[in-house]
Amino acid sequence: MAGSTIGTIFTVSTWGESHGKGVGAVVDGCPAGLPLSEPDIQKFLDRRKPGQNRYTTARKESDEVEILSGVFEGRTTGTPILLMVKNTDQRSRDYSEIASYYRPGHADYTFDKKFGFRDYRGGGRSSGRETIGRVAAGAIASKILAELGVTLCTYTKSIGPVAASEFDPSHIEKDPLYMADGHASEKAQAYLQECMAKKDSAGGVIECIVKGLPAGVGNPVFDKLDALLGKALFSIGAVKAVEIGDGTAVTLASGASNNDSFRCSQEGQITKATNHSGGILGGISDGSDLILRAHIKPTPSISSIQDTVNQDGENIQISIKGRHDPVIVPRAVVVVEAMTALTLADALLTGMGARMENLIKVWK
Amino acid sequence: MAGSTIGTIFTVSTWGESHGKGVGAVVDGCPAGLPLSEPDIQKFLDRRKPGQNRYTTARKESDEVEILSGVFEGRTTGTPILLMVKNTDQRSRDYSEIASYYRPGHADYTFDKKFGFRDYRGGGRSSGRETIGRVAAGAIASKILAELGVTLCTYTKSIGPVAASEFDPSHIEKDPLYMADGHASEKAQAYLQECMAKKDSAGGVIECIVKGLPAGVGNPVFDKLDALLGKALFSIGAVKAVEIGDGTAVTLASGASNNDSFRCSQEGQITKATNHSGGILGGISDGSDLILRAHIKPTPSISSIQDTVNQDGENIQISIKGRHDPVIVPRAVVVVEAMTALTLADALLTGMGARMENLIKVWK
Amino acid sequence: MAGSTIGTIFTVSTWGESHGKGVGAVVDGCPAGLPLSEPDIQKFLDRRKPGQNRYTTARKESDEVEILSGVFEGRTTGTPILLMVKNTDQRSRDYSEIASYYRPGHADYTFDKKFGFRDYRGGGRSSGRETIGRVAAGAIASKILAELGVTLCTYTKSIGPVAASEFDPSHIEKDPLYMADGHASEKAQAYLQECMAKKDSAGGVIECIVKGLPAGVGNPVFDKLDALLGKALFSIGAVKAVEIGDGTAVTLASGASNNDSFRCSQEGQITKATNHSGGILGGISDGSDLILRAHIKPTPSISSIQDTVNQDGENIQISIKGRHDPVIVPRAVVVVEAMTALTLADALLTGMGARMENLIKVWK
Amino acid sequence: MAGSTIGTIFTVSTWGESHGKGVGAVVDGCPAGLPLSEPDIQKFLDRRKPGQNRYTTARKESDEVEILSGVFEGRTTGTPILLMVKNTDQRSRDYSEIASYYRPGHADYTFDKKFGFRDYRGGGRSSGRETIGRVAAGAIASKILAELGVTLCTYTKSIGPVAASEFDPSHIEKDPLYMADGHASEKAQAYLQECMAKKDSAGGVIECIVKGLPAGVGNPVFDKLDALLGKALFSIGAVKAVEIGDGTAVTLASGASNNDSFRCSQEGQITKATNHSGGILGGISDGSDLILRAHIKPTPSISSIQDTVNQDGENIQISIKGRHDPVIVPRAVVVVEAMTALTLADALLTGMGARMENLIKVWK
Repeated sequence: MAGSTIGTIFTVSTWGESHGKGVGAVVDGCPAGLPLSEPDIQKFLDRRKPGQNRYTTARKESDEVEILSGVFEGRTTGTPILLMVKNTDQRSRDYSEIASYYRPGHADYTFDKKFGFRDYRGGGRSSGRETIGRVAAGAIASKILAELGVTLCTYTKSIGPVAASEFDPSHIEKDPLYMADGHASEKAQAYLQECMAKKDSAGGVIECIVKGLPAGVGNPVFDKLDALLGKALFSIGAVKAVEIGDGTAVTLASGASNNDSFRCSQEGQITKATNHSGGILGGISDGSDLILRAHIKPTPSISSIQDTVNQDGENIQISIKGRHDPVIVPRAVVVVEAMTALTLADALLTGMGARMENLIKVWK
Repeated sequence: MAGSTIGTIFTVSTWGESHGKGVGAVVDGCPAGLPLSEPDIQKFLDRRKPGQNRYTTARKESDEVEILSGVFEGRTTGTPILLMVKNTDQRSRDYSEIASYYRPGHADYTFDKKFGFRDYRGGGRSSGRETIGRVAAGAIASKILAELGVTLCTYTKSIGPVAASEFDPSHIEKDPLYMADGHASEKAQAYLQECMAKKDSAGGVIECIVKGLPAGVGNPVFDKLDALLGKALFSIGAVKAVEIGDGTAVTLASGASNNDSFRCSQEGQITKATNHSGGILGGISDGSDLILRAHIKPTPSISSIQDTVNQDGENIQISIKGRHDPVIVPRAVVVVEAMTALTLADALLTGMGARMENLIKVWK
Repeated sequence: MAGSTIGTIFTVSTWGESHGKGVGAVVDGCPAGLPLSEPDIQKFLDRRKPGQNRYTTARKESDEVEILSGVFEGRTTGTPILLMVKNTDQRSRDYSEIASYYRPGHADYTFDKKFGFRDYRGGGRSSGRETIGRVAAGAIASKILAELGVTLCTYTKSIGPVAASEFDPSHIEKDPLYMADGHASEKAQAYLQECMAKKDSAGGVIECIVKGLPAGVGNPVFDKLDALLGKALFSIGAVKAVEIGDGTAVTLASGASNNDSFRCSQEGQITKATNHSGGILGGISDGSDLILRAHIKPTPSISSIQDTVNQDGENIQISIKGRHDPVIVPRAVVVVEAMTALTLADALLTGMGARMENLIKVWK
Repeated sequence: MAGSTIGTIFTVSTWGESHGKGVGAVVDGCPAGLPLSEPDIQKFLDRRKPGQNRYTTARKESDEVEILSGVFEGRTTGTPILLMVKNTDQRSRDYSEIASYYRPGHADYTFDKKFGFRDYRGGGRSSGRETIGRVAAGAIASKILAELGVTLCTYTKSIGPVAASEFDPSHIEKDPLYMADGHASEKAQAYLQECMAKKDSAGGVIECIVKGLPAGVGNPVFDKLDALLGKALFSIGAVKAVEIGDGTAVTLASGASNNDSFRCSQEGQITKATNHSGGILGGISDGSDLILRAHIKPTPSISSIQDTVNQDGENIQISIKGRHDPVIVPRAVVVVEAMTALTLADALLTGMGARMENLIKVWK
């Protein structure tokens, strides 16, 4: 399937390039009867829009989503939902230079090696605009999750060397970097100013916390919930590491400190005393919060001078023109949330038949 | 598919539980004409055997693989290859205790929540023995890769706080912990002695380096090569973080330092001056070494006293009996290699038709 | 995936309803480098347009296709191709009557049972307009096949009781019913006049002959080429039987008469003396012509009075208003061709790695 | 996946060749908690055994099934079920002759074209023995269906020109040809005697009737229930045509006679007055009986003299040695039933989440 589709029952296929006529997604397998309208989706898209703050490009992109199918009288019909955002800015500016060489840190070279040539305008299919389809689809998945009492909180945990030390979820939405710590955010903004002055860029860490996910979601072997989430997060361009729960820190822990004890409340509710595992045991959710982190590399588009080669095999030096985000982390926050939501919605749907009693409950 | 199958063209489905009649895998989609015999596979299985050193359980498991189908006159026929390892030790010792409670850090609780009950003998399906099928299948994938000039080198990079500082690949095979640094290994062994004395356990990091992978393998969007590999590694029990290339370190780097410059040799060969990206750009291999790391949590089976609950909802204290590996990292080295090999073999097969010219080359 | 996607490597997902904003498809996995433009696709769509003759509805549908992604500088890029045909006629005429009852022979009742409600305007997702996406995608598949020397010839073999007795392929394109026998076509047209006079409708048989398909395409077991084609044809609404080669007639034949002898020409070319098998043996193409037939039921929308029930559970009588095609067979001819082409393109792509030597040919 | 796996949630992968060490299947995605033991499966396998009557080969095959995984304390655990039947007769008799030429009507030639060579012993992977895995898996699917009140009745409708005119389901199990009409069976047996005398063979028609399937199973587009069933039946070797409901006869019917009227009983139960559609409308079950027919070609292995070619490209004459079934229809009855059951079990599982209310019912 050439890899533009994700999911087994709830499937999402994105389409579109940076400078084609539009971008979007087809969502199939969405249960019928979910209330859905364009504003539900627009709200998510607005979180990834550029120009929200001065650390992302000022380029004006309206990115208005249209639902072309699959919704009738305000509810999903169970048939494919086509989501489309038209590309408004397709002016054919001169791409001949960018077409001729390989930008370091970008997919120009690898696309040529795989496909023989590439749509070089604005990164083509490897552009960040491809994530519009993911975010739009993620908005639908989030609505499904919300109906089941599952909520996601996603935020910027660090920018370059500046890590948050506090966690105030109510701050996230108003923070220009989507951090949950206003003081850290100020330091991070100062750091980004330095990066911009040096014509350089920064990376960072995004964390997603999922509350309300029932225990029993996921699978024992290849489709472990962590494996599905790992794939989903690594499918976001620029992610170079993914952690679940304590993540890399587990290698320094001991079994005694890393194991989460089970406890039973007086009401008979089983919980864990700690949550080093990040909500997953043996590939299946354990009813605790799901905790995921994605590590994002610094934006490869920088305006300082870089060595590279052109298509004629000559070693050259380039300086990438245009305005570039010194960091993509804030815009990627909602992408991480969307990919997590898509994965969970599908895992809930594919897991419905894990027990005979459920099959009987639905069909008999 | 309940998640016991991985791959699109080259598919692997594992089956079997710790104390059932056997474990193994079905490999479908293996190209016809590959020389294959049981010793090719046994060699891989022997690398994950317990009892290879004193840090893994002395339990005698012969783990001899049988090929039941798909090979004729020493070559694969292109039809499913059934791999089986019989479980020799199925003595029905008393599991009533372990059946009654949930071991911290294990999948006992989550299996019960998903399936309603579980095969509690020796961890059942969530046992490490499930990886026998993966390793056996990985041996086949490795043979395919070898025919294309692709080789894998996998080793223990750290155990608990003891990290290797040298890299001598020739040392790996003879090291009891599969480290590439004899001095670090000695320290790690001392550290494991301490863990055992404290009835505790340790985690560690495994690195896999792939050489010879052609550029152009992988896909632009959801099935990015890193996403497929991320899923494959996270599907290994106990993996809590996965890194590609510089991994988590990229968040501290700047764009200028993290971008790998392209260089063209006098022979017209395009290479990268550095390899921070770990051999993947935009989800597609770039012809450099692929570099992956899996972070493994400490073995959850420890014999010190732990708090937990039993199935009657009582808070109890347990001490897990029997001999337990203080670390599973060395045994997981070949599992990481197998999962990487499976993923690459499938990516090479699914990617054959990326260009019309290849389709014509094969069919016309 | 809720079943709106077909294919493994070359995948097609259709979207859209009869009276939504548009209909279309996403084609993923199309090899890069295929010359493609909108007229290539329009040519196919024009073959399924209504109003081509007086036996199909005169309703004016322009059905102009737009390619929104996946093509750059006249060639496919290997990334998803979004095909869209806007629905021009969305006037919200009164559907309250049709919304209230279940039309016999239609999917109204079953959609309600599956999804809880339905988009009742013009049949919604079960409308014949859904096939626009298939035909558009089929045009792309046909171009791939043409590059490999594979061509398809599809035509109406019978309408109601009127069967063709001659086969003149050059006649098909100009025949109003897409028959290959002008005399039979005249009789069939007379028969359709009778049907219309009786406010009734007719079915028929469509045959597809594929020339130039190399031997070795398909698979031995569940994904036999005949099984894939059978699924593809049965996925067309109104198809109630599918035949390969001699089809139902084989049950009256004997082994001696039904077996096709192999013959070797002086040039060493192996062929079959006859082709009862219709080009497939053991699920794999044998190099002969592929021969398929789909049996199409009479159009269920008829204006004569019918018994049915309404949503309140009352037994009522209805007469379906509006102009209806007395037969859909001629319009379904290109749909059968499209589904065959999609299936073959995918089978050729998934079959590229059947031998190690092919893998080496492409990657080394 | 090279096509040895079928299903989306409930998946079945068969493995094994005629003269390898064994044959069988892996069943994944079976809901946990289904009572299952080997006799449940053996009962099905016994129905396809040769030597049950004098029209099938007397070859003694015990075909005893073993469950190697996925069942614990008499119930399915939700993990993969490995089913194995050992091949008892692997004596290496001389296959050099059969290895050298292509049997008409068999897959020898196409396997060579696809894979480059083949396991020629007893047909290898294309042997009827491959269906053992399907039947064993079908027994599990049938148990799932039975728990939901869905039952299947499958029988031989015709042998060569001898068609049943009566339908007495209670007769089927005791009939040597699995016909539901004792008189027709006697005539069919006489016809088979003639075939054997002429060293020739016969085909026939198998019908499967499914009772109790709820309305709402299946999907609107590519994965229509009829499409999934069509694929499943065409995946059985020797099937050359598949019909649903009135099948090929619909092309002679008119809309008025072919449409099934809906009726509402006094209890408010909606039914159809007739069932020309065979229980499916628009790809989704309508609550009526499902009616399917598979048309089976005459056994290609006949001992009379046939023309063919050998691998050196010489035109030769052969006479296939050994005892051969003059008809495979009776043995294929249970295979048709198994493939239908597998398809329905998977359709029920994949369809659980068609409505939000079901998702809430299971997860909240």
